[in-house]
Amino acid sequence: MHPFTSQSAASVAALGEERLIAAIRRWLGPASPRAPFGIGDDCAVLPAARGRQLITVDPVIYGRHFDASVPPRAVGAKLLKRNLSDLAAMGGRPTAAVLALTLDARVSLRWLEQFYRGLAACARRYRVPIVGGDVAQATRSLTASLTLLGEAAGPRVVTRTGAQRGDQVVVTGLLGRSLSSGHHFRFTPRLAEGAWLARRSEVRAMMDVSDGLAKDLKALTPRGAAAALDPAALPRRPGASVAQACSDGEDYELVCAVAADADLAALLRAWRRAFPRTRLTPIGRFVPPDRVPAGAIDPTRFHGYEHLQR
Amino acid sequence: MHPFTSQSAASVAALGEERLIAAIRRWLGPASPRAPFGIGDDCAVLPAARGRQLITVDPVIYGRHFDASVPPRAVGAKLLKRNLSDLAAMGGRPTAAVLALTLDARVSLRWLEQFYRGLAACARRYRVPIVGGDVAQATRSLTASLTLLGEAAGPRVVTRTGAQRGDQVVVTGLLGRSLSSGHHFRFTPRLAEGAWLARRSEVRAMMDVSDGLAKDLKALTPRGAAAALDPAALPRRPGASVAQACSDGEDYELVCAVAADADLAALLRAWRRAFPRTRLTPIGRFVPPDRVPAGAIDPTRFHGYEHLQR
Repeated sequence: MHPFTSQSAASVAALGEERLIAAIRRWLGPASPRAPFGIGDDCAVLPAARGRQLITVDPVIYGRHFDASVPPRAVGAKLLKRNLSDLAAMGGRPTAAVLALTLDARVSLRWLEQFYRGLAACARRYRVPIVGGDVAQATRSLTASLTLLGEAAGPRVVTRTGAQRGDQVVVTGLLGRSLSSGHHFRFTPRLAEGAWLARRSEVRAMMDVSDGLAKDLKALTPRGAAAALDPAALPRRPGASVAQACSDGEDYELVCAVAADADLAALLRAWRRAFPRTRLTPIGRFVPPDRVPAGAIDPTRFHGYEHLQR
Repeated sequence: MHPFTSQSAASVAALGEERLIAAIRRWLGPASPRAPFGIGDDCAVLPAARGRQLITVDPVIYGRHFDASVPPRAVGAKLLKRNLSDLAAMGGRPTAAVLALTLDARVSLRWLEQFYRGLAACARRYRVPIVGGDVAQATRSLTASLTLLGEAAGPRVVTRTGAQRGDQVVVTGLLGRSLSSGHHFRFTPRLAEGAWLARRSEVRAMMDVSDGLAKDLKALTPRGAAAALDPAALPRRPGASVAQACSDGEDYELVCAVAADADLAALLRAWRRAFPRTRLTPIGRFVPPDRVPAGAIDPTRFHGYEHLQR
């Protein structure tokens, strides 16, 4: 469905602001609590948090993260799932979200309704109340930016920092061809997997793979080390080349550093019992830069998704 | 300063994503804590909140909330101050913020640096750590959306709900001509005033005036009542007509319902001691709809700022 319409009567401008906000609250339904705990006051009031909190923000932008070929319900779900993936990468679970929408007055009401209904269905599934938002007009734009709050699902928050030379690198699921396969909007964020991995003390560092494995892995690689990946080991989506598995963005998988002296086989056995339908694959190690074996992939040779291009 | 440049070398595209993010962290400086408590991981980790939290989100959009005539430092400050005003309206104080930026690759680096430096200076002034963010490209766009977290400054959060028939209406500061006077970016958010008003039990309901008094007042007006405003009482910015004081947006003042039986004179005396340089003005009452006195302003006759126009 195309998000823009040339028919005034079918566009958001036909409703005007007040009726549009009323419609949004109807579309969100039970996913949006009543004010002051939801939309309708200057701020939303949130219950006290029990421990440390997590916060992240990610948008979906027309022409960049979706186009007319992606169903609007899937765009709404993708917006939340992208942020859930960031939360999963630290071992978190969600508590609340707010949404800032900037749209052209020609955005189609039908498209927008489906977008919000898709977001609401996803929010109910993952129990994320949509507590606030803003709608503003911007010419030729359709951007939705979601801020997600969460908390640690277990006793520990796992960051990108902490990997050491010698650590093994493991990755969940399959890599590559996310855009052409539709994975970029059909994926399931790895919340349960991230919470499980965060409970394993041998997992030293973790992040999600969203800009391509090779680019993202730089942030996990300890100083004075290089990632040496085995090209044959990379878990590739059907039809994906090694280069695509390294460079394509939007995998929304988790990549972890596992302590060098950990019993990797035991970790993998426990994983298979917990997640029999999802792979956890050892793909390489962090090694001294002069000890990269011949034939290993050098991730610095690959470019991941570049966000600013002219 | 114009935010767009036709010279590639002076645009954000010249830096590319990684160096741009490094530059943003440099521009934010001490306003942005280190990961995992700030920018640089999948999520930012926030310390535990002591009580109920407040959350709000508001953007600044090129062509809507600012243009080339507004200094970029003032745009950055305005983005934070708009959100602080929402927090002030509930008696809150800020704890953390995240920023989602969508920009065209032709945005000028000089403009962007000043924007972030203005944001950072304002964040330091109000002690709001900028803990996270996202930068994404969107053609012809320059939008920054800030999500602000806060907490009650005192024992009470004041909402828009709670006014009763007979209650008096008071407003802080001056109204009207915000755009033409530059008030829309020079204003000081009423944080101290909001916290003070929230501690007064006779203040039953409060909100900020951002879309024009007449429009915003609808949200404060109790069911089965009408706001009857005295046109002579309206505190107008120099040169502002009564209509402008009612309809112009971006006042960023606070409007409150004060209990009918409260000692208004005592409230005003206490206010003058606390805030000798800022007015608090009684402007009318909530009355039964058939008791609106002749000569009173009927706010429903005025239209405030309309966010969606074709």
